[in-house]
Amino acid sequence: MRPRNGLYAQSGGMTAVINASAAGVIETARKRKADIGKIYAARNGIVGALTEDLIDTSRESARSVAALKHTPGGAFGSCRYKLKGFDENRAQYERLIEVFRAHDIGYFFYNGGNDSADTCYKVSQISKKLGYPVACIHVPKTVDNDLAVTDNSPGFGSVAKYVATSMREAAFDVASMAQSSSKIFVLEVMGRHAGWITAAVGLAADARHDIPLLLLFPEVAFDEARFLARVEALVGSHGYCCIGVSEGLRNTDGSFFSETGLRDAFGHAQLGGAGELVAKLIRRKCGFKYHWALADYLQRSARHIASKTDLEQSYAVGRAAVEYALSGMNAVMPAIRRASGRPYRWTIAPAPLARVANREKMLPAGYISADGFGITRRAREYLGPLVMGEAPPPFRDGLPDYAWLKNMPVPRRLDAFEV
Amino acid sequence: MRPRNGLYAQSGGMTAVINASAAGVIETARKRKADIGKIYAARNGIVGALTEDLIDTSRESARSVAALKHTPGGAFGSCRYKLKGFDENRAQYERLIEVFRAHDIGYFFYNGGNDSADTCYKVSQISKKLGYPVACIHVPKTVDNDLAVTDNSPGFGSVAKYVATSMREAAFDVASMAQSSSKIFVLEVMGRHAGWITAAVGLAADARHDIPLLLLFPEVAFDEARFLARVEALVGSHGYCCIGVSEGLRNTDGSFFSETGLRDAFGHAQLGGAGELVAKLIRRKCGFKYHWALADYLQRSARHIASKTDLEQSYAVGRAAVEYALSGMNAVMPAIRRASGRPYRWTIAPAPLARVANREKMLPAGYISADGFGITRRAREYLGPLVMGEAPPPFRDGLPDYAWLKNMPVPRRLDAFEV
Repeated sequence: MRPRNGLYAQSGGMTAVINASAAGVIETARKRKADIGKIYAARNGIVGALTEDLIDTSRESARSVAALKHTPGGAFGSCRYKLKGFDENRAQYERLIEVFRAHDIGYFFYNGGNDSADTCYKVSQISKKLGYPVACIHVPKTVDNDLAVTDNSPGFGSVAKYVATSMREAAFDVASMAQSSSKIFVLEVMGRHAGWITAAVGLAADARHDIPLLLLFPEVAFDEARFLARVEALVGSHGYCCIGVSEGLRNTDGSFFSETGLRDAFGHAQLGGAGELVAKLIRRKCGFKYHWALADYLQRSARHIASKTDLEQSYAVGRAAVEYALSGMNAVMPAIRRASGRPYRWTIAPAPLARVANREKMLPAGYISADGFGITRRAREYLGPLVMGEAPPPFRDGLPDYAWLKNMPVPRRLDAFEV
Repeated sequence: MRPRNGLYAQSGGMTAVINASAAGVIETARKRKADIGKIYAARNGIVGALTEDLIDTSRESARSVAALKHTPGGAFGSCRYKLKGFDENRAQYERLIEVFRAHDIGYFFYNGGNDSADTCYKVSQISKKLGYPVACIHVPKTVDNDLAVTDNSPGFGSVAKYVATSMREAAFDVASMAQSSSKIFVLEVMGRHAGWITAAVGLAADARHDIPLLLLFPEVAFDEARFLARVEALVGSHGYCCIGVSEGLRNTDGSFFSETGLRDAFGHAQLGGAGELVAKLIRRKCGFKYHWALADYLQRSARHIASKTDLEQSYAVGRAAVEYALSGMNAVMPAIRRASGRPYRWTIAPAPLARVANREKMLPAGYISADGFGITRRAREYLGPLVMGEAPPPFRDGLPDYAWLKNMPVPRRLDAFEV
């Protein structure tokens, strides 16, 4: 009997290292040819699975697959599209199973964050109900670091390294300019609900780098008077002040400090502008000249400064996903377990998706300093290992040499389906 | 007779590698102890020279001076402060000479861009006039790449490498999201009057990286209809579109596309927001969802992704400055000469400041493609070598390990002076 095929799909926002998880899935499957057939990839995430827009990864050379480990973005495309509940949207689940059946898919690897963990869990349950059981393994990924159970979310460590590095570098710049020019530097970072990335900015300052740094977490309601007093004090003591601002900074009434008014497909408010507003507020109230930066996609695609630890973990969860599936597991996620902090040692262990889906791992209150503007030693102990190690991509002509795949389509066997 | 001392000062905006020039000056002087005394540094640029706020670099260890080569920002502080003409502001020039005399300064090394080249030239002339001749050597530096005579301006190559890398990485991200989410990514870059940095964004796309990329140069008046048509066409062909926008983008009437209304000490308008405005325009007119990033200080402080070529040239101009001064030259700048393009070979040669000061090297029209939205092969031939080579800083605990100097003051010998 021919072994059944696997389907891999990427979901939600990208990371600098999500393709390393893809490489982990594909390379591991290639070593287990007796147990698993081809790995197909859904083009543009779950949408490609529904529309039968599949990519045959067996057409890619070993070299191309290996290049995924150093290429940012999502090699097969992603989407912001969430399946509704089974009762509301039975047709979509039935279609998904139809596609699985048509292409002899026995294993579904869904690489994403909280929403895709939920989808993955539902697909696992419904495939049984519809009489075509598929082993569903969620491959964790999100720069937001808000996945439950796992020590951290693959993708986060690289953003953490990028934002901490960038803030440290900018601090050296503004420090030199402060006497006669800009005294304030503001960096706005991602992290809608949880301040993990904001906390990572805090690593910019350490015992060897005395940087006057304030953090504005989404968890701490913005207290203008207290904040401005701290800015004034740091400009007084150091001549300048650096501020890491979460895009999700909130006012005391719970509203977002800034809101564009747009909402994405998950109904989340699309935010932007908190950094600029904070900078302008300082200018207006304290009179200090400012510079501000918006890292946006740069922070989550900066493969050139990826964390080696993050890269290795991203690959490891992809590899484990295939191993779990082939050992008969279902509705699990390979989670990272911290065996020890110093030196950092980690293992991968399966976590039931029922314990992962629809939960958000929030930044512990004990990670935010008592004044609300910094990180504690515990936060440093947690974050420190995640940014460790460098794994630069190959450079060619002075720039990172990233690779596109051929992404050859799998011939369709079904009628079209409207998403 | 004791050899006379040197005074080194940094001016204007920082670069990722200006400290390498400082290291070039200090290390070279230390090898020539019979010919030159101590190297003092003016704290916060020319302001420190006027206020007699001097730093004794001889108090720094060889190791600390070497660490300058991998540390961004300006180690001694900079300023945005321009000396007026001699007739308008005789008191300042007299004070400068008084400070030089009090500290036995025979050599003045001024590390900056166009404005400081002008100051350096004036100081050289006036020091003679006031009976205390000082050898004035301008050490070139500016991310804007607009210094005349020299092949390129030290500091530019590293920004070029940063913006091209960042745009390439973001392109891989937006390409994966485009089907159901953001189709547009905009990166706003520096470059007030000359589109050198904007042109460098163009390196993100090449024969191996088919990225749909449009550039909005300060040299090309913004033509909304033509631009939006190109955006639509690229979204049609590639599914997404990346746009590099100069902060100095101008309307057809010559006004800045965006202007904050602030002006710096040189009277230059302080710009910001062109990137966001372009993104919002696309959203409004074409309906495409966008992401945008503002690199700001990150682009000019990103020592972690500095160009090795740029680093070497920055060091070389610092070294040459001391050699020139000690060989009796005055009112010159060590300029980079391109001996050959492929392979890139360069030498350093003295350029008279009279030919450098108050000139801006504009982006040649032949570097901008006929449609106004891209770069030509000639531009690639020019820019390509400048981003070549990697020279990462040492990392410690997963982050670049940058170094502050002790910056010990030189005892004052004069009365206070108001700037």
